[in-house]
Amino acid sequence: MTIVRGFRFAGVAAGIKKKGGLDIGLLVADELVATTAVFTSNRVKAAPVRLSANRLRLSRGRMRGVVVNAGNANACTGPRGETDAARMSEVAATAIGAWPEHLLVASTGVIGQPLPMPKVESGIAAAVRALQPEGFDDFATAILTTDRRPKIATATIKIGGKPVTLLGCTKGAGMIAPNMATTLTFVATDATLVPGALARMTRAAVAPTFNAIAVDGDTSTNDTLAVFASGTSKADVTGPGEAKLAGALTDLLADLARQLMADGEGVHHVVTIAVRKAASVRSATTIARRIATSPLVKTAIAGGDPNWGRLLCAIGNAGVPIDANKIGVTIGEVEAVRKGAVAPGYDESKAAAVMKSASYTITVDLGVGAHDARFLACDLSHDYVSINADYRS
Amino acid sequence: MTIVRGFRFAGVAAGIKKKGGLDIGLLVADELVATTAVFTSNRVKAAPVRLSANRLRLSRGRMRGVVVNAGNANACTGPRGETDAARMSEVAATAIGAWPEHLLVASTGVIGQPLPMPKVESGIAAAVRALQPEGFDDFATAILTTDRRPKIATATIKIGGKPVTLLGCTKGAGMIAPNMATTLTFVATDATLVPGALARMTRAAVAPTFNAIAVDGDTSTNDTLAVFASGTSKADVTGPGEAKLAGALTDLLADLARQLMADGEGVHHVVTIAVRKAASVRSATTIARRIATSPLVKTAIAGGDPNWGRLLCAIGNAGVPIDANKIGVTIGEVEAVRKGAVAPGYDESKAAAVMKSASYTITVDLGVGAHDARFLACDLSHDYVSINADYRS
Repeated sequence: MTIVRGFRFAGVAAGIKKKGGLDIGLLVADELVATTAVFTSNRVKAAPVRLSANRLRLSRGRMRGVVVNAGNANACTGPRGETDAARMSEVAATAIGAWPEHLLVASTGVIGQPLPMPKVESGIAAAVRALQPEGFDDFATAILTTDRRPKIATATIKIGGKPVTLLGCTKGAGMIAPNMATTLTFVATDATLVPGALARMTRAAVAPTFNAIAVDGDTSTNDTLAVFASGTSKADVTGPGEAKLAGALTDLLADLARQLMADGEGVHHVVTIAVRKAASVRSATTIARRIATSPLVKTAIAGGDPNWGRLLCAIGNAGVPIDANKIGVTIGEVEAVRKGAVAPGYDESKAAAVMKSASYTITVDLGVGAHDARFLACDLSHDYVSINADYRS
Repeated sequence: MTIVRGFRFAGVAAGIKKKGGLDIGLLVADELVATTAVFTSNRVKAAPVRLSANRLRLSRGRMRGVVVNAGNANACTGPRGETDAARMSEVAATAIGAWPEHLLVASTGVIGQPLPMPKVESGIAAAVRALQPEGFDDFATAILTTDRRPKIATATIKIGGKPVTLLGCTKGAGMIAPNMATTLTFVATDATLVPGALARMTRAAVAPTFNAIAVDGDTSTNDTLAVFASGTSKADVTGPGEAKLAGALTDLLADLARQLMADGEGVHHVVTIAVRKAASVRSATTIARRIATSPLVKTAIAGGDPNWGRLLCAIGNAGVPIDANKIGVTIGEVEAVRKGAVAPGYDESKAAAVMKSASYTITVDLGVGAHDARFLACDLSHDYVSINADYRS
């Protein structure tokens, strides 16, 4: 069990999830620590997201921690949702001896139903009593909804010979569970950073990781990714040290993002869409995202069908200028398309064999520039439809 | 059988479709007639689309007709595809006594394989021999791929006491059939119009009809919608007559678009998404399209689940400024959401009953402006996944 000095964690069962299990999580720093967060871009934001974004701005990036519940998203709950989110932080803050304004709040679960506040309040009280430096596994479990397992990543790097530790967890069965569509991600580190540097580093680390995955292209009302830095490490995180820490944070988030995709219910294949030689990073990213979210591509991935026509069709639909006669497509190591048409000597059965793997790469070479981007895609399977259509919430 | 004076039609079997049946269609006007067409916005355009768009521009909107094959899209076929598309028009033009430059060409079917030109050429020759004023049913059948049935609409209106007839057909199992993702639509009318007026009228009629439907949000490499006006009607189509004809054309295309959706394989529900009181038509359309293409909404439609949280989530994801606290949602006649939260007295079982229908309307009231838009959506079902994943092309 990894420990990050300066933090305590807890996860307890409060009876919010219908199926039972841990459902109140608490992450608390010993004092105010540098904190940054990235929230959903959805214009419909759940009450805890609005509350947390406001508090983070007012505190100028110095917070004590976060209180989380699973089983109810507290989204589309009107004025009562605002009150309930604030109350969650009040109960936790009072018990740990802090101001409510110094706690973030996150919720995940069913949309449109009021929180069962008696259960939530007694759960938070129990979580405060359970706080311990070794509590991260419980915390990582308490934030889950339909996830099959906790998703945790840890890293210790040395900067100037001194160790810096990062410990993170994520949840969200990839936007695919009924009404429980939220991605929550929390990272605790003992790195010593001012809030501005932490925020910049986090934004840069999120772009190629959590912002480069798509299960179904929808974005939840509750998505939250928060990083807390306690500053208990003696390492000098400036200059080359900052770059090293930024790399470690990006790797940690990439690890968590890939775990998130692989654990998505209905997901059998995690496919890296690598777009190369685009005119700009922006156009490379747009095309990679379009491929990764195309239902026709995703069903081809599900069926293990090397249907390169669908890939070209998705590329053409990205709204980005391209030269169709320059496009190349490689599935794993099998060249399928050269100059916009089937490649000489293409063996479809070899491409189909690649697509049986749980994880592989489809490379698209646009042949027009020098910029690359990657996106993680997955299959659109019968299980996805079953989970989202057959299940009655 | 409706006849439109000035046109002959044919559909013959040439052995291009693996499953057999009519697969070469020919629509020929007796002389050069006002012609307009709308082509796919996909940047990867099939050879016949590039050829037809060029010819229409060079001829300033005066053409003799269109030659169509089903079973092979002639897309992503390199230089040979260009030659084959041109050759199709040459064979037809020579036989009817016209210039190849005065024929449009359209293809639909598998992507990335060369056309079987011997079959195509003898099929076109046979189609020319079969041309007759009563041949529209055969033509409408010959353009089909995985469609379950031909989709035909006809209308006769009177302008100044004189009749004007429109006769149209469409194909395309709603972008959902493997490798055969194309929508083709052809309309013949005896209206007397200059090409510019026909083009304006058609663009206006396409926006709320064929550009307001989505099965899976993908756009094919081959989509083509063409309107031919022979000018044999004596009606004066200027001033109020033009508005009446424009209305009839819009209604005809709306009818064909709805037939297209309903015939889509894997489609069990055609749902009108009506967005009201938006700040602009553009934002209303963007939100309606986002709802109609959200996989979480589409699986809810498949499951008959009145999951209004997913609707709000999709609205928030449209990238359009909204006020979440003003949103209302009505499913059929059942008010589900008022001011961004569950409506007082909402009875979920009544909303679920509405969603059992094959056809119903979901109304979203944004409460911020005076502009409306509509979009046709459908379900994302097990059949969709089966057709697109389990099938090996």
